[in-house]
Amino acid sequence: MTVAVINAHMRPTLEGRLPEGVDPLWFKDVEQLLALAPRAEVAWLDMIAPQHAREAIGRMTGLRWYNAMSSGVDWLPLDLLRERGVRLTNGAGIHAQAVSEFVLMGMLTMAKGWRQVVRAQDRHEWLRQPPGTRELLDAQVLVIGAGEIGSRIAELLRAFGSQVTTARRHPGPGELGQDEWLGALGRFDWVVLIVPSTPQTTGMFGAEAFAAMKPGATLLNFARGTVVDQDALLAAIDSGHLGGAFLDVTTPEPLPQDHPLWSRENVHISMHLAGRAQDALLARGAARFLDNLERYRRGAELVHQVDLAAGY
Amino acid sequence: MTVAVINAHMRPTLEGRLPEGVDPLWFKDVEQLLALAPRAEVAWLDMIAPQHAREAIGRMTGLRWYNAMSSGVDWLPLDLLRERGVRLTNGAGIHAQAVSEFVLMGMLTMAKGWRQVVRAQDRHEWLRQPPGTRELLDAQVLVIGAGEIGSRIAELLRAFGSQVTTARRHPGPGELGQDEWLGALGRFDWVVLIVPSTPQTTGMFGAEAFAAMKPGATLLNFARGTVVDQDALLAAIDSGHLGGAFLDVTTPEPLPQDHPLWSRENVHISMHLAGRAQDALLARGAARFLDNLERYRRGAELVHQVDLAAGY
Repeated sequence: MTVAVINAHMRPTLEGRLPEGVDPLWFKDVEQLLALAPRAEVAWLDMIAPQHAREAIGRMTGLRWYNAMSSGVDWLPLDLLRERGVRLTNGAGIHAQAVSEFVLMGMLTMAKGWRQVVRAQDRHEWLRQPPGTRELLDAQVLVIGAGEIGSRIAELLRAFGSQVTTARRHPGPGELGQDEWLGALGRFDWVVLIVPSTPQTTGMFGAEAFAAMKPGATLLNFARGTVVDQDALLAAIDSGHLGGAFLDVTTPEPLPQDHPLWSRENVHISMHLAGRAQDALLARGAARFLDNLERYRRGAELVHQVDLAAGY
Repeated sequence: MTVAVINAHMRPTLEGRLPEGVDPLWFKDVEQLLALAPRAEVAWLDMIAPQHAREAIGRMTGLRWYNAMSSGVDWLPLDLLRERGVRLTNGAGIHAQAVSEFVLMGMLTMAKGWRQVVRAQDRHEWLRQPPGTRELLDAQVLVIGAGEIGSRIAELLRAFGSQVTTARRHPGPGELGQDEWLGALGRFDWVVLIVPSTPQTTGMFGAEAFAAMKPGATLLNFARGTVVDQDALLAAIDSGHLGGAFLDVTTPEPLPQDHPLWSRENVHISMHLAGRAQDALLARGAARFLDNLERYRRGAELVHQVDLAAGY
């Protein structure tokens, strides 16, 4: 039997659908989780705080496979998992549609000055002139990070008629490599960050990158707060060089109430909501887990297995 | 020589590009316009108030062609133009991209509860849960009115993975006719109105239509305020049957400051901004006018000529 320790939150979605030979142990709180942890061969803990997941993993000495629903896995003890030979799968792709819709919403609301319309309605004031008159049609957009989410963003933008360039670590034809995008930044009206969070991407977008951007261009960060040098971002906003920023992620999270980013007129904060803004999240997560569980049982390769050295 | 009375606002865009044989008379205000009106064979007056346009047209006894940049022409004296044998061209298609981007923005912001995020940022409050978790993926959408704008809206929605049905007066394969969409309303999560404003569409969407909608569904009106029975809309909102409304157009415009629509939590008012939210509006309008002016001079058919009996 394969003992799987699973958050009881997932029980209504999974029960009756688990393959033969799997013995699920459902936990309802951290105490139960820590008690069951030593018995886990498989674990799916999502929807608990990262520090509790790390503590539980520390006790899972018999763990063979850890399933995470998030795309980013930087909050997991990757070195420990690697030492113990644990396979890690993530939710890459599960969030592609939800995050892409959020990115397009962010770009459209900034292009049209939508926030000013919202505030005007709150004042019962009929605006006579559109506060924003930009279009995505013919906009020059750079998407840095072209995994499943970045590719879907690019696809949607192309439907709008945007001119999209993608950048990634291993570039394909027409794409920019990691040593090429910095030199090309001046061409783009919009830059979307959707790289994985790894030691290589930490602080990747700093003062040099902001200086290289086209004046008035907009940065959207849907990767991790740490990917952007936030002081350099603030300086670029305050100098007027950067036209605006849309930050789904910040450093730290939550952003403290007195943080200057909250009140800059051209900074939009979306509170790491993008990936979770989907009714179907649990259903998609469960389908992925069940597919992988069946593969696991028959000794096949798991899909969306993370390279623990690369971190994504 | 063809005498063309044109708003001086367009002069920088048009000068040096007018065909041979055209004598432009530029007006800077209503007084100049009314003085020049009797000499007009061609007129392009846009960016003046409708009542001034109507007054000037009344004096244009030699008018052969009137060019409008708007898509809707319900504000023009269509009967008078018809009696005098004046050709009318409109801006159909010029606004397709801008309006479509606005429609998609409206749907995305409602799906994600974006207005609540805007207000939370204004309070410096980090939301823990997404206020909206709907996706356009697999959403059932009905677009009523499938001219150039409606077709572009449908195309963008399909890129997002929505299931789109279009309805129009002369339906093609797979489309609903004008006597069919009412009976099908219960299938749709979103209904987008983008019909032309004609006597047939006035009050088209009333109590019967709201009752036929799927509970919790959302109505978007990008046609004309008069297309929707606004009292029935308010009743459907207040009963909780209608999930929400996004109104680019209202009756009247501007909406009076004490109107109840302003403050309903699930009603979004965008102040007839959609079609004007485009940097390229004048350039596109000028290109259309110049193309038609060249056709006019050589006696060819004009593009986007309005059927004065049908009103679009």
